[in-house]
Amino acid sequence: MIDTNFYERRAPITLARICELLAIDIPERCDPGFVIQDIGRLDQATDSDITFFHNAKYIDELSKTKAFACLISSKYSSLLPEHTHAIVVEDPYLALAILLREFYAIKTDHDRSRPYISEKASVSGSAVIGDGCYISDFVSIGKDVIIKNGSFIGPNCSILRGVEIGKNAHIEPNVTISFAKIGDNAYIKAGARIGQQGFGFQIGRNGLVDVLQIGRVLIGNNVQIGANCTIDRGSMDDTIIGNNVRIDDMVHIAHNVAIGDYCVIAAQTGIAGSTTLGKGCMLGGQVGIVGHVIIGDRVSIAAQSGVMQNVENGKRIAGSPAMNAFSWQRLNVIFRKLDGGTSITG
Amino acid sequence: MIDTNFYERRAPITLARICELLAIDIPERCDPGFVIQDIGRLDQATDSDITFFHNAKYIDELSKTKAFACLISSKYSSLLPEHTHAIVVEDPYLALAILLREFYAIKTDHDRSRPYISEKASVSGSAVIGDGCYISDFVSIGKDVIIKNGSFIGPNCSILRGVEIGKNAHIEPNVTISFAKIGDNAYIKAGARIGQQGFGFQIGRNGLVDVLQIGRVLIGNNVQIGANCTIDRGSMDDTIIGNNVRIDDMVHIAHNVAIGDYCVIAAQTGIAGSTTLGKGCMLGGQVGIVGHVIIGDRVSIAAQSGVMQNVENGKRIAGSPAMNAFSWQRLNVIFRKLDGGTSITG
Amino acid sequence: MIDTNFYERRAPITLARICELLAIDIPERCDPGFVIQDIGRLDQATDSDITFFHNAKYIDELSKTKAFACLISSKYSSLLPEHTHAIVVEDPYLALAILLREFYAIKTDHDRSRPYISEKASVSGSAVIGDGCYISDFVSIGKDVIIKNGSFIGPNCSILRGVEIGKNAHIEPNVTISFAKIGDNAYIKAGARIGQQGFGFQIGRNGLVDVLQIGRVLIGNNVQIGANCTIDRGSMDDTIIGNNVRIDDMVHIAHNVAIGDYCVIAAQTGIAGSTTLGKGCMLGGQVGIVGHVIIGDRVSIAAQSGVMQNVENGKRIAGSPAMNAFSWQRLNVIFRKLDGGTSITG
Repeated sequence: MIDTNFYERRAPITLARICELLAIDIPERCDPGFVIQDIGRLDQATDSDITFFHNAKYIDELSKTKAFACLISSKYSSLLPEHTHAIVVEDPYLALAILLREFYAIKTDHDRSRPYISEKASVSGSAVIGDGCYISDFVSIGKDVIIKNGSFIGPNCSILRGVEIGKNAHIEPNVTISFAKIGDNAYIKAGARIGQQGFGFQIGRNGLVDVLQIGRVLIGNNVQIGANCTIDRGSMDDTIIGNNVRIDDMVHIAHNVAIGDYCVIAAQTGIAGSTTLGKGCMLGGQVGIVGHVIIGDRVSIAAQSGVMQNVENGKRIAGSPAMNAFSWQRLNVIFRKLDGGTSITG
Repeated sequence: MIDTNFYERRAPITLARICELLAIDIPERCDPGFVIQDIGRLDQATDSDITFFHNAKYIDELSKTKAFACLISSKYSSLLPEHTHAIVVEDPYLALAILLREFYAIKTDHDRSRPYISEKASVSGSAVIGDGCYISDFVSIGKDVIIKNGSFIGPNCSILRGVEIGKNAHIEPNVTISFAKIGDNAYIKAGARIGQQGFGFQIGRNGLVDVLQIGRVLIGNNVQIGANCTIDRGSMDDTIIGNNVRIDDMVHIAHNVAIGDYCVIAAQTGIAGSTTLGKGCMLGGQVGIVGHVIIGDRVSIAAQSGVMQNVENGKRIAGSPAMNAFSWQRLNVIFRKLDGGTSITG
Repeated sequence: MIDTNFYERRAPITLARICELLAIDIPERCDPGFVIQDIGRLDQATDSDITFFHNAKYIDELSKTKAFACLISSKYSSLLPEHTHAIVVEDPYLALAILLREFYAIKTDHDRSRPYISEKASVSGSAVIGDGCYISDFVSIGKDVIIKNGSFIGPNCSILRGVEIGKNAHIEPNVTISFAKIGDNAYIKAGARIGQQGFGFQIGRNGLVDVLQIGRVLIGNNVQIGANCTIDRGSMDDTIIGNNVRIDDMVHIAHNVAIGDYCVIAAQTGIAGSTTLGKGCMLGGQVGIVGHVIIGDRVSIAAQSGVMQNVENGKRIAGSPAMNAFSWQRLNVIFRKLDGGTSITG
C-alpha cells in the first residue's frame, strides 16, 4: 500500500500502546500485548492489522474485513465480524489521524540532531540559524533573519531581510517570505508568498500614487498555509494570522486582514483588505469577502459565497451576495421552480 | 511577424509536403513543388505564403488576401480571390496547429543529442538522469529521483526525493514536484506545485490533529498542467490524473481527486478532495466542485458553476448551485424579467 | 510604530517642505520652519508629528489627537482640537500616500550607484545588465536578456532567453519571465508567471494537437503585477498590458488578451483568451470574463461577476451572468423577497 520511495513504515505497535495513544481502555477479551503490524482500509487489512470505519459509504465492507481490530463508533461496532475486535472511539477518523503517524513516516533527509546548511544555499552572515535546522539547496536567507531550532527550509526558498521564523517550521520548496514574523510549528506549502507589497495606491491628478506599505505579516503558532497562497503585508498596520489557523491552497489574504485563531479557510478563497475574521470561522472554497468588514466568531461561509457586509457571531451564510444560509437554500428551491417546475436534471 | 529573440523560422515547405502533413489530396491546378515560404494571417500573408480562415469574424478579409493558398473549409472556399488556392480541410484551425510547428520553432538551448546538467544545479548522487536531458541552473534534484530521456527541467525547479518523470517532459521554471510519478511527454508550466501535503486534519478535543498524507500524485502520459496550479498528493490513496489531460493555469486539484483521460479544465477551477471526474469532461474557468462527488464521462460544466452533487455521463451543467445547463439558461431569462422586464443593458 | 527590521525612518521634514510636496499653501498661523518628526495615526501622533483623517469611521478620534498637524478635507477641519493645525487637502489619503514615502523607506541592499550581481546568480554572457542593477542569489538570466538601469531582481527569479526589462524594475523573488518585453518602472510581485505557453490546442481525430504559441507578452510602463499571477504569452499575436495598469495577486490573463492603460484588476480575476479591455476599467475580485469579447473604456465590473458578452464604454456591470449593475441590484432585492420576505439575516 505504501510507496517506499516516499514513506517508511515504522515499528509495529502493541494494542496496549494503541489504546494509550487514543486515551481509551483496552477492549474486553483483547490481548494488550498483541502486536499490530499495520493500519489499512477495510478491504486491505490483514489479521494482524488494524482498520477503520468512518464513512457510512463503506458499510458493506464492514462484514468482510479480515482485520484484527477496527476503529469504529459504538453505533456500528456490532456489524463487525466476530474475528475483528471493535476499538470503540468517539471519532474514528480522528483516531485514524492519531495512529497513522505512529505507523508511517515521511522519508526525509532532515536529521534534527544536527544542523545542515547546503553548500548551495546563501545565508547572510548576520542571520541566526537555530540548532537542528535544515537549509536546502538554493535557499537565500537575507540579513538579520532568525530561524529557530529544528526548522526545515525547502529548496529555492527566498527568506528576505529581517524575517523571523519560529521553531520546528516546515517550509516547502519555492516559498517567498518577507516582512514577516512567524510563530512556532508553521507548515507553509510550496510556492506560498508571504509579505509582498499589498495592492495599495490612490488615484491622483497625475495618475496613480502608490502607498508605501510599511506593515508586516504576523503569523501565530501552529499555522498551516497552502501552496501558492498570497498573504500581503499590512500598509500602516499589520496583516495578522492567529494561532492554529488552517489555510488551503491558493487563498488570497490582502493587506491588513486579521484572521482569528482556529479559522479554517478552503482553497481559492480571497479576503480583501482590512477585513477581520473572528475565531473559529469555517470558509468554503472560492469564497470572496469584500474589504473593511467584520466577520464574527464561529461564522460558517458556504463555498463560492460573496460576503459584502459584517456578519455576527455564529451565523451560517451562503450565496453571492451572501445571506443567511437557510434563506439561501429556500430561495434556491423557489428559483428552480420559476419555470414551472421543469426537471432540472433531465 | 515573428520575434527572432524568441522564435526561429524553419525551412520553407512544398505544397506537396503540406498536403501530406494534413493528410489531404493536392488541390487541382496546384503545383505540388511550389515552395510555401511562411504562414500568416489573411492580412499578412504574401503571394508565396499560406494563410488560414477559421473564424467567421474575419470574413471580410477573405477577398482581400494576397496569399498563395488558404486553409479553409469547403463552405467558404468559393469566397477566396482567384489568385489564392483553397486548401480545403475539415478543421482549418487544426490544420493551422499542424502547420505552425513545421514553419516555426521556439529557440531553445536544449540539444537532445547530448545531456546537459548545469554546474549550478544540484543533483543527488542517487538520482538517475536520462540521455539528452537538460537540467537548468538552480534545479534541486533529490535522492532516488528518476528523470527519463530527453526531458527539460527549467531553472529553479525543486524535484524532491523519489519523484519519477517520464520521457520528453518539459518542466518550465520554478516548479515544485514531490511524492509524484509522472508519465511521458508531460508539459508542466511555471510555478506549478505537485505533490504537497493536502488539506487534511480532524478537530479533536485538544485542537486540530493533522492527518499524515501518505499517498502520491500519479500523472499519465501527454498531460499538460498550467502555471501556478496546485495538485495535492493523496492522503491514504493517490491523487490521479489520467492520460492526455489538459489543465489550464491556477487550477486546484485536492487530495485523492481522480481525473479521467482527455479531460480539459480551464483556469482557476478548483476540485475538492476525493471527487472523481470521468473521461473527456470539459470544465470552464472558475468552476468549483465539492468533495466526494462522482462526475461521469463527457460532462460539460459551464464557467463559474458550483457543483454540489454527482453528475451523470454526458450531462451539460451550469450555475451555482449547478443544474442542467438548459434549465439554468431558461431560469436566467425568467430571473432577468422579475423586475418587469426593465432593460438590463441600459 | 515602525519595525526597524524592515523599514527605516528618514529625516524629519519642515512644514514648508510638506506643503510643497502636497502643492498647497502653508496654512495661516503656521511656522513654515517647524520640523515635523513623524507621521502617524490620530491616536499615535505626538505634538511634533503629522496625522491624517481620511475615513469617517475614525471621526471620534479627531478631537482627541495630540498631533501638531492633520491632513484633512475642509469639510472636517473644524473638528480638530485647537492645538492641531489643519492641513487642508482635497484627498487626505492621497496626501498620506505622498508623505509616507518621505518619512519612511524600505530597508534594502540595493545601492543604485553601483551594480551588484550575486556570485550565486547565473548570468548568460550575452545578457546586458544596466548600471545600478541588483541581481540577487540564484537568479538565472538567459541568452540575450536585456535588463535596463537600476532594476532589482529578487532571489530565485528565472529570466529566460531574449526577455527585455526596462529601467527601475522591481522584481520580487521567485518570479518567472519568458517571451516578454516589459517597460520601465515595472513592479512584479513574488511568484508571478509571465510568458508561459497559453492554453491552446485543437481536438483532432487522433487526439489533441497543441497549437505552437509564437507570440509574446508586451507590458507597458509603470505596471504592477501581483503575486502568483499568470500572464500567458500570445499564440500568433501578443498578449498586451498597457501603461499604468495595476493587477492584484493571483490574476489570470490568458493568451492574446489586451488590457488598456490605467486598468485596475483586483485579486483572483481571470480573463480568457483574446478578450480586450479598454482604458481605465475597474475590475473587482474573482471576476471571470469569457474569451473573445470586447470590454470598452472605463467599464466597472463588480466582484465575482461573470462577463459573457461585449460591454460598452462607461458601463457598470455585475452578476453572473453579468448585467447592468443597477438591474442586478434591483433583481437581487426582488430575489430575496421570493420566499415572502422572511428575514434573511435571522
